[in-house]
Amino acid sequence: MGNTRVICAATIEDRVPPWMRGRGAGWITAEYAMLPSATPERNQRESVRGRLGGRTHEIQRLIGRALRAVVNLDRLGERTVLVDCDVIGADGGTRTASITGAWIALAIALRKHFDPGNAASWPLVRQIAAVSVGVVDGTTLLDLPYEEDSRAEVDMNVAMTDAGGFVELQGTAEREPFTREQLDAMLGLAERGIRELFALQRQALG
Amino acid sequence: MGNTRVICAATIEDRVPPWMRGRGAGWITAEYAMLPSATPERNQRESVRGRLGGRTHEIQRLIGRALRAVVNLDRLGERTVLVDCDVIGADGGTRTASITGAWIALAIALRKHFDPGNAASWPLVRQIAAVSVGVVDGTTLLDLPYEEDSRAEVDMNVAMTDAGGFVELQGTAEREPFTREQLDAMLGLAERGIRELFALQRQALG
Amino acid sequence: MGNTRVICAATIEDRVPPWMRGRGAGWITAEYAMLPSATPERNQRESVRGRLGGRTHEIQRLIGRALRAVVNLDRLGERTVLVDCDVIGADGGTRTASITGAWIALAIALRKHFDPGNAASWPLVRQIAAVSVGVVDGTTLLDLPYEEDSRAEVDMNVAMTDAGGFVELQGTAEREPFTREQLDAMLGLAERGIRELFALQRQALG
Amino acid sequence: MGNTRVICAATIEDRVPPWMRGRGAGWITAEYAMLPSATPERNQRESVRGRLGGRTHEIQRLIGRALRAVVNLDRLGERTVLVDCDVIGADGGTRTASITGAWIALAIALRKHFDPGNAASWPLVRQIAAVSVGVVDGTTLLDLPYEEDSRAEVDMNVAMTDAGGFVELQGTAEREPFTREQLDAMLGLAERGIRELFALQRQALG
Amino acid sequence: MGNTRVICAATIEDRVPPWMRGRGAGWITAEYAMLPSATPERNQRESVRGRLGGRTHEIQRLIGRALRAVVNLDRLGERTVLVDCDVIGADGGTRTASITGAWIALAIALRKHFDPGNAASWPLVRQIAAVSVGVVDGTTLLDLPYEEDSRAEVDMNVAMTDAGGFVELQGTAEREPFTREQLDAMLGLAERGIRELFALQRQALG
Amino acid sequence: MGNTRVICAATIEDRVPPWMRGRGAGWITAEYAMLPSATPERNQRESVRGRLGGRTHEIQRLIGRALRAVVNLDRLGERTVLVDCDVIGADGGTRTASITGAWIALAIALRKHFDPGNAASWPLVRQIAAVSVGVVDGTTLLDLPYEEDSRAEVDMNVAMTDAGGFVELQGTAEREPFTREQLDAMLGLAERGIRELFALQRQALG
Repeated sequence: MGNTRVICAATIEDRVPPWMRGRGAGWITAEYAMLPSATPERNQRESVRGRLGGRTHEIQRLIGRALRAVVNLDRLGERTVLVDCDVIGADGGTRTASITGAWIALAIALRKHFDPGNAASWPLVRQIAAVSVGVVDGTTLLDLPYEEDSRAEVDMNVAMTDAGGFVELQGTAEREPFTREQLDAMLGLAERGIRELFALQRQALG
Repeated sequence: MGNTRVICAATIEDRVPPWMRGRGAGWITAEYAMLPSATPERNQRESVRGRLGGRTHEIQRLIGRALRAVVNLDRLGERTVLVDCDVIGADGGTRTASITGAWIALAIALRKHFDPGNAASWPLVRQIAAVSVGVVDGTTLLDLPYEEDSRAEVDMNVAMTDAGGFVELQGTAEREPFTREQLDAMLGLAERGIRELFALQRQALG
Repeated sequence: MGNTRVICAATIEDRVPPWMRGRGAGWITAEYAMLPSATPERNQRESVRGRLGGRTHEIQRLIGRALRAVVNLDRLGERTVLVDCDVIGADGGTRTASITGAWIALAIALRKHFDPGNAASWPLVRQIAAVSVGVVDGTTLLDLPYEEDSRAEVDMNVAMTDAGGFVELQGTAEREPFTREQLDAMLGLAERGIRELFALQRQALG
Repeated sequence: MGNTRVICAATIEDRVPPWMRGRGAGWITAEYAMLPSATPERNQRESVRGRLGGRTHEIQRLIGRALRAVVNLDRLGERTVLVDCDVIGADGGTRTASITGAWIALAIALRKHFDPGNAASWPLVRQIAAVSVGVVDGTTLLDLPYEEDSRAEVDMNVAMTDAGGFVELQGTAEREPFTREQLDAMLGLAERGIRELFALQRQALG
Repeated sequence: MGNTRVICAATIEDRVPPWMRGRGAGWITAEYAMLPSATPERNQRESVRGRLGGRTHEIQRLIGRALRAVVNLDRLGERTVLVDCDVIGADGGTRTASITGAWIALAIALRKHFDPGNAASWPLVRQIAAVSVGVVDGTTLLDLPYEEDSRAEVDMNVAMTDAGGFVELQGTAEREPFTREQLDAMLGLAERGIRELFALQRQALG
Repeated sequence: MGNTRVICAATIEDRVPPWMRGRGAGWITAEYAMLPSATPERNQRESVRGRLGGRTHEIQRLIGRALRAVVNLDRLGERTVLVDCDVIGADGGTRTASITGAWIALAIALRKHFDPGNAASWPLVRQIAAVSVGVVDGTTLLDLPYEEDSRAEVDMNVAMTDAGGFVELQGTAEREPFTREQLDAMLGLAERGIRELFALQRQALG
């Protein structure tokens, strides 16, 4: 996604978190990290600080929720999919790029356990992809690189399924509150961007 | 807010975080916690676990961002306002109740340092309040208690200023993706709820 | 207790610590914390520091020991009572107020599992309450508020049962060592104060 | 002290904790640890668990308070004495043995900075020593070894200065509350034991 | 290095560790990590475990020592070079690959501050590279991939400078102790392998 | 070993780490620590810092590997030997002294479970001991005390079995890379030193 590069990998384990045991259903969880060299200014390694920061927690929870929204957890059985998103180049939009890429990694990993041709048992019921949109100098823009992102008035992340519904909507006014009209413009732009990503996801899976 | 009860307090300190020094501007940050006895099932103390969970980090960052959106940080000078939101009763909507209550605590604390009658120097330029809205069994509802919240199809938190703009919009499809129509219905309902809270905030300040 | 206010809650869990398993007896443990806003100067949250301080550990152990002294652990069966004492206002004597209040919370929680009318099986065999006493400017005083406590020559915490025996005695000479006569005066004063608390505890239980 | 063996060392540093700076006075603090091999059953290393337990915190605070009670902190100047008590053999009474031994280490360390012959400037104004006493099978006993300590009805630690005053008194009823008479008997026994320790301390200093 | 792939980056900061201040000399330190997806079996993220493991510490110290051996720290001035080695593919020999790659990253970073053409001030006085050698089924082998490494009788890491001297020698008998003859054979093989790496390093720098 | 003094103890537990279960074989692991007072300058306690440093991890892993090399883990059965090495006096060579002393503690502990006279079942198949050697001012020296160690050009730790093979070889050029000739001289000297230690180990076991 531009200069933003994320290595996404999915691992399937034959166990579920303690509070899920015995229900016959599965779970999906995500971990997100950045290499120290991913940003222009080196960022400190969280393993060295000894704990995950608030931003990392927030992004991990977002990725996990987004993926769970397009998986039939009952079909997964008592399995956990652990998705790793490791950013090796960061130029804005790393969380939305992670969701989009994680969906591909998830699909590849599930193919080893399930038959995608069997519509009754294939757990990945929908595509999901995400983009960031924002308002910069009064203009609504798609997929802001870091330089524009840092001076945006509004920053919004949108995740949608290929059925056209919203799964996540996270909008923050960095400087000025935003109006209903601006919201509508951003959502329209996001939807167009996400449609392109669905095509790229299908292409990546061959 | 119903059976949700939050003790909000604001402390003003004469220093700013290292990365803010020398700019002449202030900062606002928040801490959020729940008493173990606040929930029907006792919840584990984070001081005992030795670290803040992802949910706590997410909420603290949300409260801080929301408050900063209505404060003129330059007028604050090189001071930090540390807002504590401690939930002693939790029945849904603790994060939005925290934002609404924290604004009152912030106003009271600022009055000791600034004159609210002096429009040129009073730092609290707007009111902010927040509500949760959701879709339960296909119906759009305001301020879901815990029992309804846990079976909502969509859960959305909305923070607005008294000028009518959005500051935060966080919508998550828990079961089914939501449509643009549902979004519009939720935003309308949220706006009406928030207007009532603005009146209650002014009343609390006398 | 004056301006000292503590929320006490007791939770009964159907398991015991690993080293207690298989003995048929129960256990009682306590957690103690202070809201940052409980003290005139905001105190830092231990969940943020990432670990419990020495003072917290000391108080938690004291509360647990005191309560266990008046409970027949065999009658409790393989259950753990976890007592939470959360200080929302601190004006001296928070640890003794916690013991006194925790006994009430314990009694209420036990009533849901045991019949207080059945003397052979009711586990709460005695009342326990505690006070602080001290020597300030040569005078022996009961229940020192923070301002006096901080300039006390001697600070002593006393926990007694309603049978009149001592369960805990913790006396510390802050400035000058204390004599046997001063000790006797403090113990006499403590005993009178504790008798009043027994009456208040019974009243709270109705 | 019987089979209880503690290596005590005192280090003087030319700085004080942040909250003591600029007052011209010093501070004394203690650290306490046990070798894993000190107890019959190997005990887990706290550095491996990653944090100090409640018992360690409690003992460290006790040792520090006891030593500060016999030192003129103003004469110390802006210096910190850090006392290390490392138990290499544990057979009951490790905290009281630590106090008694730490006083000797403290005296030796202070001699390198101050002249003990100069009564106006020598900071160590008193001796302090401590013993444990207890009630076992109804009998009051001095300095309980581990085997007796573990079945004691009452366990009490007493620290006194050579002027005869109490500095610390920590009594806990492990099984049965104790009476005023038992308390008096224990204090008398403790005082006799402590007098012997004062002689041994002086002997150790030559 | 075969299927072992390491992203190496070097960052120069204008400060030194506290214990180096005021000496006019610099320092070099290294951090090493593995992506969870780098190994065939996913490996747990150290930021999630909350602390660096023993193996990571050992490797970081090794990389730092090796690089410091070929840098004139006085010429560096009061600067710290922080080298990051992030393994994205692990198939044996990740620590030696890190040293070899880190040297290249170090050279590139130093070029931005120093002139490599000025022999009197250029701080990178030598090349350093490292390989692993081992004995598998009685045969001495260079650069063991993971599959062979795991059944090696001896595992040895060798770091040398282009002047031919040893900087690090770490040999471990995994199954059978090794003889002086085997040691000589391994060192000869290592030296030939390292000479090839020196050529590749120069080629990478153009 | 000169002024270096280490308390070594071995504890046998009837369980193995999770990844060893069900194989019928045992494991040996080591913990290493230093008393704060062991060094001329007080060293900070790792339990206080809240985590083990890199050097400690490195040494613990070294001791464990060295001991495992001379034990038949199958004969040990599903048991773990936990070896504690606590340095109470540090004057160079604490890690090699720990290996040598730990072997004696291991032998004593094993005698309580196994018959050393039964060659077919006695798990301790070899002796192991270790020394440090170094080059100081161009001269090869055995067992460097701290003062010489800190200005050594090369520092090497060697662990050998009584069959004459190398188990660990860790050489580091602190200032100047070392040549093959220097390596040979150090290994010869180390071997002579280790032979003396084997005799002392046997003597200690009587």
